[in-house]
Amino acid sequence: MDTVGHTIDSVLVARFAAIVGDRYALTDQADIVPYLTERRGLWHGATPLVLRPGSVEEVSRIMRLASETGTPVVPQSGNTGLVGAQVPDASGRQIVLSLSRLNRIREIDALSNTATVEAGVILQTLQEAADAADRLFPLSLASQGSCQIGGNLSSNAGGTGVLAYGNARELCLGVEVVLPTGEVFDDLRKLKKDNTGYDLKDLFVGAEGTLGVITAAVMKLFPKPKGREVAFVGLASPQAALALFARATDRAGPGLTAFELIARRPYDFTLRHAAGIVRPLATDFSWYVLMEISSGRSPEDARDLVEAILGAALEDGTIEDAVIAASLAQREAFWNFRETLPEMQKAEGASIKHDISVPVASIPAFIEQGEKAVHSVSAGARVVCFGHMGDGNLHYNISRPVDGDDEAFLALYKPMNKAVHDVVRSLGGSISAEHGIGQLKRDELIATAPPMAIDLMRRVKAAFDPAGVMNPGKVI
Amino acid sequence: MDTVGHTIDSVLVARFAAIVGDRYALTDQADIVPYLTERRGLWHGATPLVLRPGSVEEVSRIMRLASETGTPVVPQSGNTGLVGAQVPDASGRQIVLSLSRLNRIREIDALSNTATVEAGVILQTLQEAADAADRLFPLSLASQGSCQIGGNLSSNAGGTGVLAYGNARELCLGVEVVLPTGEVFDDLRKLKKDNTGYDLKDLFVGAEGTLGVITAAVMKLFPKPKGREVAFVGLASPQAALALFARATDRAGPGLTAFELIARRPYDFTLRHAAGIVRPLATDFSWYVLMEISSGRSPEDARDLVEAILGAALEDGTIEDAVIAASLAQREAFWNFRETLPEMQKAEGASIKHDISVPVASIPAFIEQGEKAVHSVSAGARVVCFGHMGDGNLHYNISRPVDGDDEAFLALYKPMNKAVHDVVRSLGGSISAEHGIGQLKRDELIATAPPMAIDLMRRVKAAFDPAGVMNPGKVI
Repeated sequence: MDTVGHTIDSVLVARFAAIVGDRYALTDQADIVPYLTERRGLWHGATPLVLRPGSVEEVSRIMRLASETGTPVVPQSGNTGLVGAQVPDASGRQIVLSLSRLNRIREIDALSNTATVEAGVILQTLQEAADAADRLFPLSLASQGSCQIGGNLSSNAGGTGVLAYGNARELCLGVEVVLPTGEVFDDLRKLKKDNTGYDLKDLFVGAEGTLGVITAAVMKLFPKPKGREVAFVGLASPQAALALFARATDRAGPGLTAFELIARRPYDFTLRHAAGIVRPLATDFSWYVLMEISSGRSPEDARDLVEAILGAALEDGTIEDAVIAASLAQREAFWNFRETLPEMQKAEGASIKHDISVPVASIPAFIEQGEKAVHSVSAGARVVCFGHMGDGNLHYNISRPVDGDDEAFLALYKPMNKAVHDVVRSLGGSISAEHGIGQLKRDELIATAPPMAIDLMRRVKAAFDPAGVMNPGKVI
Repeated sequence: MDTVGHTIDSVLVARFAAIVGDRYALTDQADIVPYLTERRGLWHGATPLVLRPGSVEEVSRIMRLASETGTPVVPQSGNTGLVGAQVPDASGRQIVLSLSRLNRIREIDALSNTATVEAGVILQTLQEAADAADRLFPLSLASQGSCQIGGNLSSNAGGTGVLAYGNARELCLGVEVVLPTGEVFDDLRKLKKDNTGYDLKDLFVGAEGTLGVITAAVMKLFPKPKGREVAFVGLASPQAALALFARATDRAGPGLTAFELIARRPYDFTLRHAAGIVRPLATDFSWYVLMEISSGRSPEDARDLVEAILGAALEDGTIEDAVIAASLAQREAFWNFRETLPEMQKAEGASIKHDISVPVASIPAFIEQGEKAVHSVSAGARVVCFGHMGDGNLHYNISRPVDGDDEAFLALYKPMNKAVHDVVRSLGGSISAEHGIGQLKRDELIATAPPMAIDLMRRVKAAFDPAGVMNPGKVI
């Protein structure tokens, strides 16, 4: 393994290391390995050096030296990204810049409803700090115990709270960014309104570290709901789910804080494979919805609201059955069921995953046309469909045929992607709703996005990072 | 006046005119005048040609010719902007591109909660179309009867609905833009989640026509509230208003759909000068709040909520008095009172206006320090303070001393601006919360913004409009 150390001159490695000090410059490959792969194991990078700066000033000096020497830098925070944006390439010529030591919550301003946090703060830590200040930080992801705010912003993270509160971009009021040259762009504002020129903040958010290194941000906080109810609903079809969604939106407005669709197959997979899981509904249905209602007024108010919505939907036949969680434990069990779904697919063999969005009204059309497209590629493939229906976002995963071979199925990766994404595009949708582009979808983005969009993105990239040192090979 | 016609070669004028046809190419100065000044009369431009294209294709051909010939183009829609962004300069070398004929509502998708509209659609027309589909389009401005969506987006318009629903940028899901070269960037998506590369949409929104011409957009719609209550509240201080705001936010969450602060002076000005105005509260107070509560459930629910909030605030002494509008007519009278405020200042002589924002918690500090700053410039100047307190945004206008001279007062424009804006900057605020930069604040932005921000904005401008034909002299 030692050979990769030589892909960057040892004198240069020493110059970088001197900025953070030996303790925080990892050069031993045993220490480096955790930074080179991600959870799904799709990407394996190489690097002779991981830098763990302890201040914005150190990040700035690292980027200045990188610019001067043309050394590509890959920013990384919690390393939970799913598209390979945070992993260096295999050349051994890129260094990894870990933000995890920049982990201070600089300020919680409960009256202005803002939190100013550094990039390395773990999402759950911020959720807990907000909670301690009697506020809600609503960004909520399966990986919240390890993902960090810098990565949440760089990937414009979504999750289950987007429906009512918005994605990471909408939750961010201001950023502090170290540019490729090492200069610091300080725009840490707590302002809800600011029309002084171009919206630079939103360029850095979602850029997956290709335009600069986000080192801190001002995030929005919200009043903590006083009541919250979670219901598990059984339905006959995606059309019925759409009707329930329309009804719940109409009635609860922003009090509808989650609306997750689950098909029968991932529901069954979870019952089959998850340890200690509780069956949410006594009988089986073709489709399920996990719905959450929040109230700023009282627990009783949330209860009344969810009962009114479900009662009317039962009465007119929109839904078949529903259970409202009767206790905090049951509520957590329902959410646990939902959060467990993605992992439970593994036990069914190889799968090909998609993270798509379409206009909400087109969800039933997508589900119908998507299934046909999948079976045109592999007749026995099993569609595993679930996701954030309220946002038009489905995790549309395809498991191999029951008796199929993993490798033979994975060989269909590209045609399967194309078949599904063609349906997405025909419905005006997105091939990456919330996970980003990274390395995984870069070629497809370039090949299929409107050429004008790619051209404009390249102009932005060239304007911000003319030397090309900022996470090259990602996004565009 | 005819001389200005010669600042652009008549052959070139004819080539531009041929694109839209003679009927829609205005060359007679009598026809052109309405396009050259704005409402406050601060800017007087000149042009030999106003073009009124009827299709995106014509806009594209105009921009292509403009790029080829280096002819600067000033996009204009409703011409209600307050910072001179939509008015050509005095050289007579810029042509005006009016978007007002692109006025189709292309689609209302009630199920996806979106409206696809062209740039020339009048804001109120869209509000009414949404209403007819049982939906709410929440952008709400004093000029809504004449301002158009293209301008709303280009200026990232705010107004009274931002608190619960967001500004124009947040209300926009996708755009169609004609670039300076005439190429069309078609990104008219109805997606709530789309992480396929850089956030180009939000660069065009708020760019005041300096990066491209927005020709259409997909805007968000919302369920129409079933109940709405408006209250006029009397209070002792901005601190008390902040306490009421915190209470209302905590209780109503996104059901708090407006929170407008009004000082005693603009309140009195309005009572004194507005024809047929009704006094909202029987006795006088130092400060007032107009508060609106909306409910997706029922009229009774909105009533219960507003009564609970105001009842508790009266009981603990946060507020001094409150009247809840007892009829639709009284509700409209309250809003009319608020909308009438800005105009009523005129009768009190010359004024110097500011459109500032600070973190919400800093509103009382700003009001205290702002008054001192104003009086350090003009001891007798009268602060006229009102605005969207829930967004941290105040229209902080300064009327001349009672017996003062208009011209002598207006000579203080720059030192007054500086004194007020210095306070804003010291509190981490913005010198343009919702009106934009245009010509009015361009020099100040360049002089006082972090140099890094200006540098990045210039790079964006150069990347998108290398020929400099797109509304030059505005923003940066």
